Amino acid sequence: MPLFFSDPEVAAALDAPATVAAMREALLAAYAGRLVAPPRAAAPLGGGRMVLTAGHLTGEWYGFRSYDTFGHPESAQVVVLHDGRTGAVRAVAVGEELGSRRTGGLGGVAVDALARPDAATLGVIGSGGQAWTQVWAAAAVRPLREVTVHSRSAARREAFAARVRAELGVPARAVDSARAAVRDRDVVVLATTAVTPVLDAADLAPGTHVNTVGFKQVDRHEFGADLLDAADLLATDSPAQAAAYDPPMLATLPGYAGRLRDLGAVLAGAVPGRTGADQVTVFCSTGLAGTEVFLLDRLVRVGAAVV
Amino acid sequence: MPLFFSDPEVAAALDAPATVAAMREALLAAYAGRLVAPPRAAAPLGGGRMVLTAGHLTGEWYGFRSYDTFGHPESAQVVVLHDGRTGAVRAVAVGEELGSRRTGGLGGVAVDALARPDAATLGVIGSGGQAWTQVWAAAAVRPLREVTVHSRSAARREAFAARVRAELGVPARAVDSARAAVRDRDVVVLATTAVTPVLDAADLAPGTHVNTVGFKQVDRHEFGADLLDAADLLATDSPAQAAAYDPPMLATLPGYAGRLRDLGAVLAGAVPGRTGADQVTVFCSTGLAGTEVFLLDRLVRVGAAVV
Repeated sequence: MPLFFSDPEVAAALDAPATVAAMREALLAAYAGRLVAPPRAAAPLGGGRMVLTAGHLTGEWYGFRSYDTFGHPESAQVVVLHDGRTGAVRAVAVGEELGSRRTGGLGGVAVDALARPDAATLGVIGSGGQAWTQVWAAAAVRPLREVTVHSRSAARREAFAARVRAELGVPARAVDSARAAVRDRDVVVLATTAVTPVLDAADLAPGTHVNTVGFKQVDRHEFGADLLDAADLLATDSPAQAAAYDPPMLATLPGYAGRLRDLGAVLAGAVPGRTGADQVTVFCSTGLAGTEVFLLDRLVRVGAAVV
Repeated sequence: MPLFFSDPEVAAALDAPATVAAMREALLAAYAGRLVAPPRAAAPLGGGRMVLTAGHLTGEWYGFRSYDTFGHPESAQVVVLHDGRTGAVRAVAVGEELGSRRTGGLGGVAVDALARPDAATLGVIGSGGQAWTQVWAAAAVRPLREVTVHSRSAARREAFAARVRAELGVPARAVDSARAAVRDRDVVVLATTAVTPVLDAADLAPGTHVNTVGFKQVDRHEFGADLLDAADLLATDSPAQAAAYDPPMLATLPGYAGRLRDLGAVLAGAVPGRTGADQVTVFCSTGLAGTEVFLLDRLVRVGAAVV
């Protein structure tokens, strides 16, 4: 019988330091060619698609995560872990926590690798689940002194700031503009559903690191080319997935593509990361495939199962 | 929390008449355009592929089955059922029973629709799990008088015959050649892993109906063009999936493609089925996508869950 996980078990077993550590391993494994993570596959179902992102850690496990694009209110992701030697299904997880935590964890790795070592302030635009896990993971890699948050809903940004104070123990305040959220911040997180830029790169202080989690394609994007132009370093968690975006990702257009580094290569020391305190660095998150399965394997290893 | 099913629950809840009835409904729903069942999607994982077949019964549910092509000994399929209105994951099944029973059920529908009404003898080539569910389902739609079975392993074909006698209550004997298995049979089942023909169409009696479950492509096939030439009627459970085979299916080559009927259309009375007692009819099983999810929905409806 496979082990079964729902969101409460995942949340209880995967804290931010463990998640960030696992995602660092995943990025290094992908860079080394041990984590096979092909672009997503999808089946059209009329009104929506069923999408599969798969991964294979050679000799260890393989599996996938599924999600759909119908936009139903309670739709949940499913993550399946197979034993790499026998093929047996070892675990199944249903819910949102694995997916959101792994995206947060990847963002945490990016902050750790690319933000200034002394980074201590974070500004976030967006107040949803993705914004939360980005801050949750960033707080695990830098001792944050203050978080500022802006989103369109005053009630939601206030609630977000309260949650940062309560759960992360970090001073936090909601602000009424994106500019106020990012001004003089060491780390900036964009985690919105915006299709037009919410950030003016001119508002960023020198030395800022930016994580972008939302739309970043030519037809819809939460930031514009001004951010890419301002950046001294562009990185992504999956160059292959970045190159597979259709319509294309802004950062893979001519002029930027040659500058887009593999975060795994930075971690491995194969290419340089930040080389100066005044550099602006930008991490374009794609959600490296296979990383939800990587986390599910980690859960099984630590014996977090319930059934 | 989703309901969870493993093979014992599936086996206990899905008998052959219920399975065949469900697959008849699925074929009619697909023909009517209510069951959306696109060709499979796959992600290459190095040494194998993760494959997803998805389905959507409009207004009711959507979901998928996953399987892989690594060839590991214990690899299991996963079937996931989402509520069509809320998107919530209602059930997850891990194992082989849903997949093998639905393939058997589709074969049972074909026998019921295309074999002579008085068909009473069945010859099967192959003695694996697919062969079993074909006979299991056929016995639910025709009162079988005798089953003959041939496969390469004498021990396995004897065991298969014993299982037919014990579980289906039908006289059965193992025979030492394919020819002896199919001679004077009303229904013939090919369910092998053979890549070259195991059947000589000249050995078939007039009026025989044939279900083919194994390889049927131009580069590997358990039967040859002689069977297609001998057939008065060719049918499949999914013309779209049949047309998507690569390399192509024999029955979709020029000369045959125009004759390949949709079994759902036959069931709906939109195209004729068998019109004479001496006709040879052939059902090319593709495994209509979405049908495992259809069966999982049926299990949930009858309250067969354990957790």
